Amino acid sequence: MVEIFSGLHYLDILGTIVFAFSGLLAASRKQLDLFGAIVIAMVTAIGGGTLRDLILDQPIFWVKDPSYIYIITVATIFLFYYARFYHVPMKSLLFLDAVGLAAFTVIGAHKAILLDLDDAIIIMTAVMTGVVGGVIRDVLVGEVPLIFRKEIYATAAFVGASLMLLGMNFGLSIEWSMFIAMLVTFGMRWMAIKYNFSLPVFKPVSHQD
Amino acid sequence: MVEIFSGLHYLDILGTIVFAFSGLLAASRKQLDLFGAIVIAMVTAIGGGTLRDLILDQPIFWVKDPSYIYIITVATIFLFYYARFYHVPMKSLLFLDAVGLAAFTVIGAHKAILLDLDDAIIIMTAVMTGVVGGVIRDVLVGEVPLIFRKEIYATAAFVGASLMLLGMNFGLSIEWSMFIAMLVTFGMRWMAIKYNFSLPVFKPVSHQD
Amino acid sequence: MVEIFSGLHYLDILGTIVFAFSGLLAASRKQLDLFGAIVIAMVTAIGGGTLRDLILDQPIFWVKDPSYIYIITVATIFLFYYARFYHVPMKSLLFLDAVGLAAFTVIGAHKAILLDLDDAIIIMTAVMTGVVGGVIRDVLVGEVPLIFRKEIYATAAFVGASLMLLGMNFGLSIEWSMFIAMLVTFGMRWMAIKYNFSLPVFKPVSHQD
Repeated sequence: MVEIFSGLHYLDILGTIVFAFSGLLAASRKQLDLFGAIVIAMVTAIGGGTLRDLILDQPIFWVKDPSYIYIITVATIFLFYYARFYHVPMKSLLFLDAVGLAAFTVIGAHKAILLDLDDAIIIMTAVMTGVVGGVIRDVLVGEVPLIFRKEIYATAAFVGASLMLLGMNFGLSIEWSMFIAMLVTFGMRWMAIKYNFSLPVFKPVSHQD
Repeated sequence: MVEIFSGLHYLDILGTIVFAFSGLLAASRKQLDLFGAIVIAMVTAIGGGTLRDLILDQPIFWVKDPSYIYIITVATIFLFYYARFYHVPMKSLLFLDAVGLAAFTVIGAHKAILLDLDDAIIIMTAVMTGVVGGVIRDVLVGEVPLIFRKEIYATAAFVGASLMLLGMNFGLSIEWSMFIAMLVTFGMRWMAIKYNFSLPVFKPVSHQD
Repeated sequence: MVEIFSGLHYLDILGTIVFAFSGLLAASRKQLDLFGAIVIAMVTAIGGGTLRDLILDQPIFWVKDPSYIYIITVATIFLFYYARFYHVPMKSLLFLDAVGLAAFTVIGAHKAILLDLDDAIIIMTAVMTGVVGGVIRDVLVGEVPLIFRKEIYATAAFVGASLMLLGMNFGLSIEWSMFIAMLVTFGMRWMAIKYNFSLPVFKPVSHQD
């Protein structure tokens, strides 16, 4: 029990930091000052989990455990200054975002599973936790949200969360189910970026009206 | 009693489906894949009601009754594939949005009336439930929100919700009040689109500073 | 006790009105009709406090006290018609926004202090209450959020809220701490606009990837 929870906790912190970094990178063209940058990093890192907790009527995770705020602040300040001296490739934004997506998807699913909710709600919660922070980040910096580009995105979170449920229904432990779900979510998203995989897109037969 | 509630329930499902369709149509230029499309449809369909329930401190309607999630998913998948083979006129987006606006406005008002809130809060809740999903949809797909165009929009929801309260104060049954409110909201919005009606717009005397 | 609360209440109403005005001004180029304008003014004025109350799991302030809704409505209608006959300089938007930022920052801090939360949460709550309404306003009207421009913005709220905590830790009364915090927040923001002060911006060493 303790083992899962501490594992989960590290995963959560990993997700928080990578999303904070992705927020900072996404915002870097806007020439924010340090505190503006912290605000974007914060919103990206805590947005998904905050909406999840509001909707599940749970205490907001970072109000209950303020260490998240300190971690995001320190990590953001570090990268802010680091990036003034060393090169941080802008494409690491995509990598960080994919790690964060995978981590937050399984954490969201885990939290909804503990509340014993319907499968559809568990999957909704998982996808929401995974994608919302990044959507807010992209809307705030005025970019087309990653979720809208035609490579697999929400799909990866959906498949990951579904596999996690499936694994548990087939008697797999929750740790293994989470591990597989995370690997698959990240893997699908990363392959999609790398090899430009995509699902059929929505192309109505005619637009000329 | 049962009659109202089942009537309400169908109305709610109608609003949910038309808003989901409007989300899918609005997003169609973005070339989303199927799951991206479902996400937009979902957010459009449940956004207003979710914010309403958060603010009124009620259990979120789709967490309590997951059938909404299944309905939106099935409806979206259906339209996604239907639209690949048959022509769906883009202007039906405006029609669907007007139906959804009317349905969700009266449902929002109804929910606030049951909680015995102040008239101003009932009207706020009604307008919010009606407009928020569409605003999120338009912001996400990067369009100017419909609510910002100069044809009557929030006004229709406001007038509808006010008439519903007025009707009930004058002794009309809640069913008739809702029916009239919905008809007027839809009618005002539709006339505004069709004949380009509008209210006086905000034109400050000078902009040259 | 009564004295603080009534002072706070007036401050809250001041913040509400100036943010409502800033919303109306920001939206003025969109040629909204009256109700569209009221919606933007409303969202700008209540957005920060609503998110604060949701996150702190408190009853939403304007549901508990509907007078806010009436005040915003009347103030917006007044300015809407006033601006058709008299000149309202667009740059007063920046001034109103700075007053609102200062007022809502200290009110947010005050509310979190009463709940006896961790310092980091108090500061988060204060900054959030101060900036969120304006961010929503700017996103809705399609402008680059003020918080993203390089002049000090979130920083002013952060410094103000920190000074308020510091003042109280050093034995200052809550009234004086709030007064100083508000003055400093407004002062920093206003100086930044006036003399174009700014903090070091985020400039990664290279973008050519």
